[in-house]
Amino acid sequence: MVEQFEEMATGIVSVARGFYARGWLLGTSGNLSAVVQREPLRLAITASGVDKGELSSEQVILIDEDARLLNEYPGKPSDESLLHTCIAKQRGAGAVLHTHSIWNTILSDLYANDGGVRIEGYEMLKGLAGVRTHEHSEWLPIVDNSQDMPALAETVSKILNEHPSAHGFLIRRHGLYAWGENLAQAKRHVEILEFLLEAMGRAIEIKQSELNRG
Amino acid sequence: MVEQFEEMATGIVSVARGFYARGWLLGTSGNLSAVVQREPLRLAITASGVDKGELSSEQVILIDEDARLLNEYPGKPSDESLLHTCIAKQRGAGAVLHTHSIWNTILSDLYANDGGVRIEGYEMLKGLAGVRTHEHSEWLPIVDNSQDMPALAETVSKILNEHPSAHGFLIRRHGLYAWGENLAQAKRHVEILEFLLEAMGRAIEIKQSELNRG
Amino acid sequence: MVEQFEEMATGIVSVARGFYARGWLLGTSGNLSAVVQREPLRLAITASGVDKGELSSEQVILIDEDARLLNEYPGKPSDESLLHTCIAKQRGAGAVLHTHSIWNTILSDLYANDGGVRIEGYEMLKGLAGVRTHEHSEWLPIVDNSQDMPALAETVSKILNEHPSAHGFLIRRHGLYAWGENLAQAKRHVEILEFLLEAMGRAIEIKQSELNRG
Amino acid sequence: MVEQFEEMATGIVSVARGFYARGWLLGTSGNLSAVVQREPLRLAITASGVDKGELSSEQVILIDEDARLLNEYPGKPSDESLLHTCIAKQRGAGAVLHTHSIWNTILSDLYANDGGVRIEGYEMLKGLAGVRTHEHSEWLPIVDNSQDMPALAETVSKILNEHPSAHGFLIRRHGLYAWGENLAQAKRHVEILEFLLEAMGRAIEIKQSELNRG
Repeated sequence: MVEQFEEMATGIVSVARGFYARGWLLGTSGNLSAVVQREPLRLAITASGVDKGELSSEQVILIDEDARLLNEYPGKPSDESLLHTCIAKQRGAGAVLHTHSIWNTILSDLYANDGGVRIEGYEMLKGLAGVRTHEHSEWLPIVDNSQDMPALAETVSKILNEHPSAHGFLIRRHGLYAWGENLAQAKRHVEILEFLLEAMGRAIEIKQSELNRG
Repeated sequence: MVEQFEEMATGIVSVARGFYARGWLLGTSGNLSAVVQREPLRLAITASGVDKGELSSEQVILIDEDARLLNEYPGKPSDESLLHTCIAKQRGAGAVLHTHSIWNTILSDLYANDGGVRIEGYEMLKGLAGVRTHEHSEWLPIVDNSQDMPALAETVSKILNEHPSAHGFLIRRHGLYAWGENLAQAKRHVEILEFLLEAMGRAIEIKQSELNRG
Repeated sequence: MVEQFEEMATGIVSVARGFYARGWLLGTSGNLSAVVQREPLRLAITASGVDKGELSSEQVILIDEDARLLNEYPGKPSDESLLHTCIAKQRGAGAVLHTHSIWNTILSDLYANDGGVRIEGYEMLKGLAGVRTHEHSEWLPIVDNSQDMPALAETVSKILNEHPSAHGFLIRRHGLYAWGENLAQAKRHVEILEFLLEAMGRAIEIKQSELNRG
Repeated sequence: MVEQFEEMATGIVSVARGFYARGWLLGTSGNLSAVVQREPLRLAITASGVDKGELSSEQVILIDEDARLLNEYPGKPSDESLLHTCIAKQRGAGAVLHTHSIWNTILSDLYANDGGVRIEGYEMLKGLAGVRTHEHSEWLPIVDNSQDMPALAETVSKILNEHPSAHGFLIRRHGLYAWGENLAQAKRHVEILEFLLEAMGRAIEIKQSELNRG
C-alpha cells in the first residue's frame, strides 16, 4: 500500500500545481484526493491549509473512511475530507477533486435558486465519462454552503442519490467537486466543467451586450 | 519516414503544451496533426483522449488518409481525425490544428445563424498567409456540430470548396480548425484567429457599455 | 540576524515571482516585506523600482522602523516602506505584501465613496486568519491615494485602529495591502482577497446581464 | 559593438518570451528593438515573422537608421522597423517595444475618434519615467493604421513632436508602441500602459453594470 500511496501523492502534487497555476486553488483552498485502497477505504488527500502551488508529497496524508489521519503528520485532515470519502464510497470514485475558481464561485451563486446549472449542447461535454454526444444534457446540482460537515456530507450524499449520472456538483459561493475513476479522469472532468462554467458565464455577458446593440 | 514522423511528433508535443497552458486544449480536447508524407498521405496526429498538458511523443500516432492507425499504439485515433485528413488533402495543408477555447466556443454560437464570422480591419490579419493589409476581410465559416463524422467531413469539404481563401472554420459550440503549410504556420494561424475572436468578443461587451454610458 | 534576513529575502523573491506571473506586480509596482527582527524592528523589503519578475535576493534590502536603509545597496527603499513598518508595528505582522492588480484597482475606485468594500458569504473568507465560517463579513477599508507618505501612513494607522479585525485595505486606484503573521500567511491573505475582489467584480457584470435578460 | 549587440539580443529574447506568455506578441506579431550604437545609429531588432515564444538571439538582427539589414540573416527586417528607428532617433530612446494585446487593440479602436486615450489618477502612472504623482495626466495618442510605412513613420514623427511628453502611442486596431532609455525601462513602460489600458477597459464594463443596477 505504501507504493500505491506514494504514486497517488505524486499524482496529486502534479495536478495541484497545475490547477494552482490556473487560479483554481488559491489561498490554500481546495482539496485533492485519490483512493489508495478500496477495502477498507484508504484515501491519499491534501492536508489542511497547505499551499497548493508549493505542495510536496509530504503534505499529502492518508485517511480512513471517517477521514481520520492514519499516518504521521504534524497537521490535520481538512474538515472537508468527509465529502471526499463520501463521494469515493457512494460513486466508487478513484479520485475526488475540489476547486475554488472565479467562475464556479459566480455560477454557483447565480443559479443557486434553480438548484443547479444545466449544461447542454457543448462538444466539451463529450469529455465526461459515458457521454457520447454534445446533445447530452448535464445537470450540475448546487447545494447550500455549510460549516456543519456531517450535515453537508449528508446533503451531498442525498444529492448524489438523486442525480446518479451527475459528474460533479457545486457548493454555493464555495466551489466545485468532481471525480473520476482515477486521477487522470477526475482532472479531465474538472477541466471540462471549469471550462464550461466559464464559457457559459462569459456567454451570458456577451449575448446580453449583443441583444442591446441589436 | 521514421525520422520525419519523429520530428513532427516532437513539434506537435511542443505546440500542444503551449496551447494547453493557454486553456485551448483543456480536458483532453482538441487534436493536432502534421503531414509526414504526401503520397500516399500519412499524418502524425495526437491520439484520442490524451492530456495535452502532459503529451509525450509516444501519444502521437501515424494514420493514413482514411484515418486508420498505422503504428502500434494501445489506443485509437480520434473520431475527428477524418477532418484532419480531409483538410490536409483539400487544402494541401502541412499541419492542421483544432482548439477548444472559451472565445471560439462563444463566438461560434453567437454568429452561428450568420453562417460565419467576418473579421476585418485588424493588423493581426496580416499574419494569415497571403494577407498583405489590415483592410483584408476574412470570413470564418461556422458549421453545425455533429457526431456523424463522415457527414461532418462532407460538410467541411463543401465549406472548404465554397470558401477557398478561408484560413480556418468554426464548428458551433465546439471549436476552431486552422491549418498551414507547416506546423509553425498553422500555430501562427491559430494564435491569430484565437486572438481576433477574443478581441471581437470583448469589444462587443465594451462598446455596448460605452454606448449605455452615452 | 543575517541568516534570518537571507531566509526572508529568499521567501520574498519566491512570492514576488509568483505574484508577478499573475500580473499583480507589473511595471516594478508593489512591495513585499518580512520582519527579520522585532526589537528593534528590522524589515527585509524589496528595493524601489525593481522588476519583480526578475527579482533577486540582492534586491531585497534591510530597513529600520523609520524605513531607513541599513545595508549596502546602490538604490533606496521605496517611499511606501513607511506603510510597511507602520503595519508591522501596529498589527504585529510578520510580513506585509502590497499588490497592484487589475481588480483591486477597479474595485478600490468603484467603492471609494463607500469607504470600503464589504465581502461576505464566500467560503474563501475562511482562509483569512481567525475566520471560521463563510458567514463572516469582512470590511476592506479604502483610503484615498496620496504622495505625502507621512500623511498616508497616518491615515493608514488611523484606519488600522478603526478596523482592528481588517485583514487588509485598499488605496484608491492604487492597490491592496495585506499582511500575516508570516510570509506564508500574508501570501495566503493576498491570494484570497485578490480572488474575492475579482469574483465580486465579475459577478457585478454577470448579474447585471442576467437581470437585463429578464 | 559585437558584445553590445549580443547583450541587447539576449535582453530582447528575455522580454519577448515574457510578453509572449502574457499574450502580447501572439502569431509572430510585434517587434522589439534596442540601440546598440548611437552614432551612426545601430539597432538590434527582432526579424520579421519570428515566433516570439521561441525567439532565439539568432533571430535578432542588426539594422541601420534606414532599417537596412547589416548582418547576415536569411530573412528580412520587419516593415515596421522604420518606426523603431524613427522613435530611437526622435526620442533618443535606448529601446522600443511594440505589442499587440487584446486590450490595446480594443481601446485603440474605442477612442480612435478622440485621437487618443487620457489616462489619469492611477498610481501605476508613477512608473512612467519622470512622473512623480498619480495626479499625472497621460495622453496616449492614437494614429490610424496604414501599410504605407514611410507615410506611417511620418505620421508617427509628427505625433511625437506634438506630444513631447507622451510615453507611447497606439496604432488603431493594431497595437502599442512604447520606449525607454534602456530595455528595462521600455519593458516597465509597456507593462504599465498595458495594465492601465486593461484596467480602464474593464472599468468601463463594470461601472456601466453598476449604474444599471442603480
